[in-house]
Amino acid sequence: MANPPESSKPAVILLSGGLDSATVLAIAKERGHTCHTIGFDYGQRHRNELDACKQVAEHLDASSHRIFPINIGSFGGSALTAEISVPKDRNEADLTEIPITYVPARNLVFLSIALAYAETIGSTDLFIGVNAVDYSGYPDCRPEFIESFAAAANLATKIGVDGSTIRIHTPLMEMTKAEIITAGTALGVDYALTHSCYDPSTDGRACGHCDSCMLRRNGFEQAGIADPTRYAVNNA
Amino acid sequence: MANPPESSKPAVILLSGGLDSATVLAIAKERGHTCHTIGFDYGQRHRNELDACKQVAEHLDASSHRIFPINIGSFGGSALTAEISVPKDRNEADLTEIPITYVPARNLVFLSIALAYAETIGSTDLFIGVNAVDYSGYPDCRPEFIESFAAAANLATKIGVDGSTIRIHTPLMEMTKAEIITAGTALGVDYALTHSCYDPSTDGRACGHCDSCMLRRNGFEQAGIADPTRYAVNNA
Repeated sequence: MANPPESSKPAVILLSGGLDSATVLAIAKERGHTCHTIGFDYGQRHRNELDACKQVAEHLDASSHRIFPINIGSFGGSALTAEISVPKDRNEADLTEIPITYVPARNLVFLSIALAYAETIGSTDLFIGVNAVDYSGYPDCRPEFIESFAAAANLATKIGVDGSTIRIHTPLMEMTKAEIITAGTALGVDYALTHSCYDPSTDGRACGHCDSCMLRRNGFEQAGIADPTRYAVNNA
Repeated sequence: MANPPESSKPAVILLSGGLDSATVLAIAKERGHTCHTIGFDYGQRHRNELDACKQVAEHLDASSHRIFPINIGSFGGSALTAEISVPKDRNEADLTEIPITYVPARNLVFLSIALAYAETIGSTDLFIGVNAVDYSGYPDCRPEFIESFAAAANLATKIGVDGSTIRIHTPLMEMTKAEIITAGTALGVDYALTHSCYDPSTDGRACGHCDSCMLRRNGFEQAGIADPTRYAVNNA
């Protein structure tokens, strides 16, 4: 089976509720894909991410949206799923090390599930918002990982063996956070709907000091675009 | 971090409840690994597999056993998870094609989750009972898939990046079903506890005619070992 024409192809978009994956959805839509979004309920401490996924999918008019329960948080080992403190105000040098917010094998697990989903709906195109420039130092965000996953995906699946090529699209890979925000803004993404903070207040406001908040804040500042994030009052 | 000495290393063993993965557990134990088994509740139509996983883990004295819920069956697309008829009495020629019992990306998903688990317990060794000789034609059982997964696993994880090498052990890859049964029997595996049938009767008896039953039956016959499988009466 040959790949269908680019313009009408169904694509599976991995959503996290954050700024990057919202931008990726807007890009996939712009490229003419029919977009099926999938978010993951993986035992994260903060449900804001899942609410944001749903709002982003609706806002950008995804053809379908689903939340898939996959409790890798039950294995423990990360500040994002266990009761471990989220580091704050880390400096640039620290960001080259893998932080405690790393979730073991997360992107590999998420991509594998997204691939299973894609195969059942006849899609050969997966979109993920990984980025190797302004990121937290996670190994599973690097281009070499994505390439090796694509190789495995094509060998693992019926759709790959049958002659289609599964593509893992990473449109943000080489972009700075400011470039991502600029591109998404041009495509009409409402970043007020997205949630990036690793350690929000109980009313959903961003802490402003975790790695994710700092990257986001700096991104808006460098892009010269007003930051719509609701920060906790003492961190505004 | 260097890999710890082989003899005391923790290993994660993927269990399916079937004959092959039970044999793999016995082999990993024989090699001196501390064995942590994981089975997957993936929406399969028959719970016998999960009961068999637990019995096999207890019988072979695994250090821990867990069932991980991962409902890829909710995506549909396979006779093992959806209401599609399981093919019976397929001949050898048919077995070179990917059958309807294929579950999209199953081994990729299972290995990814097992890897996440391994990383949280400090294990770099995964064991899986895939086999490229007497198998049902699934793409994710081939050595080239396993190699590509291992490459992705080492790039995806902190443990891989930190200098350890994650190994995906496939001790059965080049063995016939008869050789697997002979090896497992020598290691004390009680195959009466294992479940292979894709389409068992309501009281858990094997149909004797699906691909999995046929491979198993022929294996015992060729090994010259009594088949302990309880077949449905009219298929004995």
